[in-house]
Amino acid sequence: MASSVLETAKKAKNASYLIAKADTNTKNQALYYIASMLEKKAKEIIEANKKDIREAKGLTKAMIDRLTLNENRIGEMAKGIREIISLNDPVGEITKMWKRPNGLLVGKMRIPLGVIGIIYEARPNVTADAAALCIKSGNAVILRGGKEAFHSNKVIVGIIGEALEKVGLPKEIVQLVPVKEREAMLELLKLEEYIDVIIPRGGEGLIRFVVENSKIPVIKHYKGVCHIFVDDSADIDMAINICFNAKVQRPGVCNAMETLLVHKDIAETFLPPMAEKYTKAGVELRGCDRTRKIIKGIKKAKEADYGYEFLDLILAIKIVDHIDSAIEHINKYGSLHTESIITQNYSNAQKFLKEVNSSTVLVNASTRFSDGFQLGLGAEIGISTTKLHAFGPMGLEELTTTKFIIYGNGQVRE
Amino acid sequence: MASSVLETAKKAKNASYLIAKADTNTKNQALYYIASMLEKKAKEIIEANKKDIREAKGLTKAMIDRLTLNENRIGEMAKGIREIISLNDPVGEITKMWKRPNGLLVGKMRIPLGVIGIIYEARPNVTADAAALCIKSGNAVILRGGKEAFHSNKVIVGIIGEALEKVGLPKEIVQLVPVKEREAMLELLKLEEYIDVIIPRGGEGLIRFVVENSKIPVIKHYKGVCHIFVDDSADIDMAINICFNAKVQRPGVCNAMETLLVHKDIAETFLPPMAEKYTKAGVELRGCDRTRKIIKGIKKAKEADYGYEFLDLILAIKIVDHIDSAIEHINKYGSLHTESIITQNYSNAQKFLKEVNSSTVLVNASTRFSDGFQLGLGAEIGISTTKLHAFGPMGLEELTTTKFIIYGNGQVRE
Repeated sequence: MASSVLETAKKAKNASYLIAKADTNTKNQALYYIASMLEKKAKEIIEANKKDIREAKGLTKAMIDRLTLNENRIGEMAKGIREIISLNDPVGEITKMWKRPNGLLVGKMRIPLGVIGIIYEARPNVTADAAALCIKSGNAVILRGGKEAFHSNKVIVGIIGEALEKVGLPKEIVQLVPVKEREAMLELLKLEEYIDVIIPRGGEGLIRFVVENSKIPVIKHYKGVCHIFVDDSADIDMAINICFNAKVQRPGVCNAMETLLVHKDIAETFLPPMAEKYTKAGVELRGCDRTRKIIKGIKKAKEADYGYEFLDLILAIKIVDHIDSAIEHINKYGSLHTESIITQNYSNAQKFLKEVNSSTVLVNASTRFSDGFQLGLGAEIGISTTKLHAFGPMGLEELTTTKFIIYGNGQVRE
Repeated sequence: MASSVLETAKKAKNASYLIAKADTNTKNQALYYIASMLEKKAKEIIEANKKDIREAKGLTKAMIDRLTLNENRIGEMAKGIREIISLNDPVGEITKMWKRPNGLLVGKMRIPLGVIGIIYEARPNVTADAAALCIKSGNAVILRGGKEAFHSNKVIVGIIGEALEKVGLPKEIVQLVPVKEREAMLELLKLEEYIDVIIPRGGEGLIRFVVENSKIPVIKHYKGVCHIFVDDSADIDMAINICFNAKVQRPGVCNAMETLLVHKDIAETFLPPMAEKYTKAGVELRGCDRTRKIIKGIKKAKEADYGYEFLDLILAIKIVDHIDSAIEHINKYGSLHTESIITQNYSNAQKFLKEVNSSTVLVNASTRFSDGFQLGLGAEIGISTTKLHAFGPMGLEELTTTKFIIYGNGQVRE
């Protein structure tokens, strides 16, 4: 007997051919139905969600919060889907075209990846979001959400299936892994014949588990250890404003700053007012020896504090001699996520942009902009720190690849 | 004691930062030196190569041929490198740039992948070719060629190192795995902290071994089962010419045609002269029942003949009712490599280009054009049939990814 996970994968593969060739209007119409039906059936979703919450065991308060759906949050889900309707359809776009001496016209055409497996935690809003991105980009998707959200996800995926069938597409374009057990995820990760890519979203533990066990290519990011380097020529007010925003505005997310690097020649002017502002906001500072001579009474930063993702109101600070030392520090301790330089020096701005190999590199702006919506990609499916396929925030375009298309008129190889 | 493979990987990582920021002139100068020194030291290379050939055990004649270097082949290697000098440097190119409402300028800049591991068989010419592509695209590379070519590879990599040092770059940009044993390859495949991507080149067995054992993302192609579909509206002369070329011009390569699909309404006109031409050239035909009614006396194609990579003068033929049946057949039996349609029908040409999801799709041209040189990419490092990162022939551009770069003037997140 074929397992239900294998059956799911086979159905997804077959459905992928149909969503790949669906036209933009059909896909948008399906998304439109999904958004309205989510709102209309909000009560049904909330009931299933309550069941999930009753049955959930051992979840922290924050996890329960992320699991919980209410009218408001369902409205947000619908709104997110309507935003995806307004984005350009990447499928079929010819990104380049050139002519060969023998008259062949060679082009690159965007095509969907095929079947995408998304593995995430108990956050039922991700279900609608991820499904909508995959539909718009012409992909079939297999969703494996945290088992604590199983009932909620089942209702949401049921609604999506209804909407797909309403426009003449098979409901198997969006499927949920049909069993709760972890074995189902393990089995999924071996089906390289049917699934083209796995995108895990969640904590580092989940992601490492997926990478260790997958035979399918994985697009991932482990963590975000973001740096800001305040160069000696920085505008002090701008530096304070940006560094405050990057640490304090939302400390628990992957694009918040975790380590602040300061040029030695600006440290004595910049650090005291910066520290005062941080301290008022409740930020715990941990500095190198030179920092602690300027900001008295703060903790000493241990080696392990550099490169650590605090996700909290804690900041490591280090004074460096030169932009090159800052770049070296980032190469050594960074996570290839997001780094920013605050500077008025033209050459240093260009040098930083060129030599820092993180997925997003900024000049004079907050690391918090490293995000699909903020960069204008529209919704994002995640952020990649794997230097392959997509690097940085991933939107619709990153859910496609390109194939070569060639118009000939009888050419053969000599 | 750290193993020598781990040491090699660490050195490659450090060297990768330096080649990533090297300017185009420096890289071209290094390539120029490599090409001339290969020619100047041809005798030394040939001596090492003779030693390899003496020590080689259990190789077929074809393998010995691929292993063998002579003045002529070394000249070809140098010529290939000079061609790479003439190609555009992809590193640093801004592929897009747009402005956000808050004034942020957001762009995508091409960057090298970092450290590339290339695993290949005993073909020492690949050593120079792959190293040159990696240098030009700003990557460090670890080469693991077939152990039978160890002495030849050692001399060639020695020459490359000398050339790199002549222009002030570290020789560790191009390294050979320092031990012959297969364990060295296994160890290499686990070093995801230091190596960004693995590109295996060779037979399906080698590639499957790499995929099974690698923790590092792998860009690969298993095989090329290429199809041509002769539509009912095809120009008969053009169809015969192209189908002959695709099968006969070089049958042993991955972009040769393996299965010919023929529309039922053209089969009786097209197949007899086509079969005559194939038979004269010594091609063995294996047909479906309908085909065998038109071409008498040929073998029956078994189920296993469809989707098989003959790499030889053998061709499977099938008559289909409609373009949709042809596309279905390709989806079922193809390898996502290269397919071509011969047609004069506008809608069918566009439909085939859109719905066939192989990495290269042609209209009215031979499958043999699926090749980096032929498509105008310049040299190629391989062909990817993994629908991720790069799909199809891979040139310099495909050895890079993009990062987001952002010019701000003080922006923070609200």
